[in-house]
Amino acid sequence: MSQNPHIRFDVLTLFPEMFEAVLGQSIIGRARQNHIVEMNFINIRDYSVDKHKRVDDYPYGGGSGMVMQPMPIYNAYRSIIDQLDYKPPVIYLSPQGQVFQQSLARELSEQKHLILLCGHYEGIDERIIEDIVDMEISIGDFVLTGGELPAMCIIDAICRLVPGVLGQEESFMDESHYNGLLEYPQYTRPPVFNQRKVPDVLLSGHHANIQKWRREQSLIRTLKKRPDLIEKAELSSQDREFIEKFKNNI
Amino acid sequence: MSQNPHIRFDVLTLFPEMFEAVLGQSIIGRARQNHIVEMNFINIRDYSVDKHKRVDDYPYGGGSGMVMQPMPIYNAYRSIIDQLDYKPPVIYLSPQGQVFQQSLARELSEQKHLILLCGHYEGIDERIIEDIVDMEISIGDFVLTGGELPAMCIIDAICRLVPGVLGQEESFMDESHYNGLLEYPQYTRPPVFNQRKVPDVLLSGHHANIQKWRREQSLIRTLKKRPDLIEKAELSSQDREFIEKFKNNI
Repeated sequence: MSQNPHIRFDVLTLFPEMFEAVLGQSIIGRARQNHIVEMNFINIRDYSVDKHKRVDDYPYGGGSGMVMQPMPIYNAYRSIIDQLDYKPPVIYLSPQGQVFQQSLARELSEQKHLILLCGHYEGIDERIIEDIVDMEISIGDFVLTGGELPAMCIIDAICRLVPGVLGQEESFMDESHYNGLLEYPQYTRPPVFNQRKVPDVLLSGHHANIQKWRREQSLIRTLKKRPDLIEKAELSSQDREFIEKFKNNI
Repeated sequence: MSQNPHIRFDVLTLFPEMFEAVLGQSIIGRARQNHIVEMNFINIRDYSVDKHKRVDDYPYGGGSGMVMQPMPIYNAYRSIIDQLDYKPPVIYLSPQGQVFQQSLARELSEQKHLILLCGHYEGIDERIIEDIVDMEISIGDFVLTGGELPAMCIIDAICRLVPGVLGQEESFMDESHYNGLLEYPQYTRPPVFNQRKVPDVLLSGHHANIQKWRREQSLIRTLKKRPDLIEKAELSSQDREFIEKFKNNI
């Protein structure tokens, strides 16, 4: 196992224990133990300059909610970069950001080091964004309590693409969105469950037929559930023929 | 405080402790303590019929990865619904699902009870989806290790819309995506941070000017960062006038 991690994440957050509970488990937990990825969860509150350890204050101009102050975030950020001779990109998780997709996960998985900043309350002081943030990312058009869940999603999606994180027994090659199509249906034991049988072809042992069936199922599902994906997918001439036939039979 | 929660979530998962760590904190944790929302995290492994507590097996037809078996999930599901005289909707978190958005969060926040099913490994047996699942939801076009993070996102987004969950000091009215626009920039103390000043208007005490400035900032940000949202937003004639002027000045 490599002792130099392929990628390092530093997360600035008010809730470091959430990250440990989620990213200490399963595939990502194992990758951390094996030093393939490194993660540090830094509590912004530890960098408060206030004796009551406050990190938020009322918004200038009035309005409901509290705003995270720039100084504790800046001090937490400096605690990382003051020990580096390079400047890693800083990502702020924000509903205003670029919408996260698998293509962006792939791009970011080639970085050596990322700093993620999680906001809370009504928002964070705009000046800290102007000062230190390189990129804003959103995971979708919905409102969450903080940037913690989006940060965990992004870390999970990126780590799965880092060489060595997925074992030989796992694979992202067949997963939905990997090749631009949705995944084919999966079946395991028992052969009959609640009167529902496993499709015969999967029990046939005929490898070529199984491959063909799975590809067609992927195409059918994508056509039915996410036709917008078909246009961007990599398709063979056989795929295109099948799609034509399928459309004509609906 | 009400003793009858407004909404109940039962989550079927292999990692119940992840949920407790994330949804036991902050705003959602408080809403649970106050019995405004109820959450149960059910470990599918407890319903394994195997003496080694296995919950997965090899896929029929070959291929990498393991597939979650239908029976333990079904038994976990029955443990919930056998005690009810109604059938709550079952949501499967899947990259194949309908893409989650704030409008869907609003719709689901009117339900009394939701069951969420989290998959893992390469996927889950298709027959359990056919048998018990009413709706598949995806949080975006990216690949995650399991359905746990998407389930937490959905629960968080829904809970914030349940009456009583957000306190008076919090508000979702000004948040990004609430009214179809991105939020205006926020500022708090100190008035000068790293040579960056708070905009004068916010220190003016002139309420109407502050309102006008914030609305215009929302419009500008949405135009710049997410022009696709403008078309669907609720706009006044004043808003439209401002947008015209802004576009002509770029």
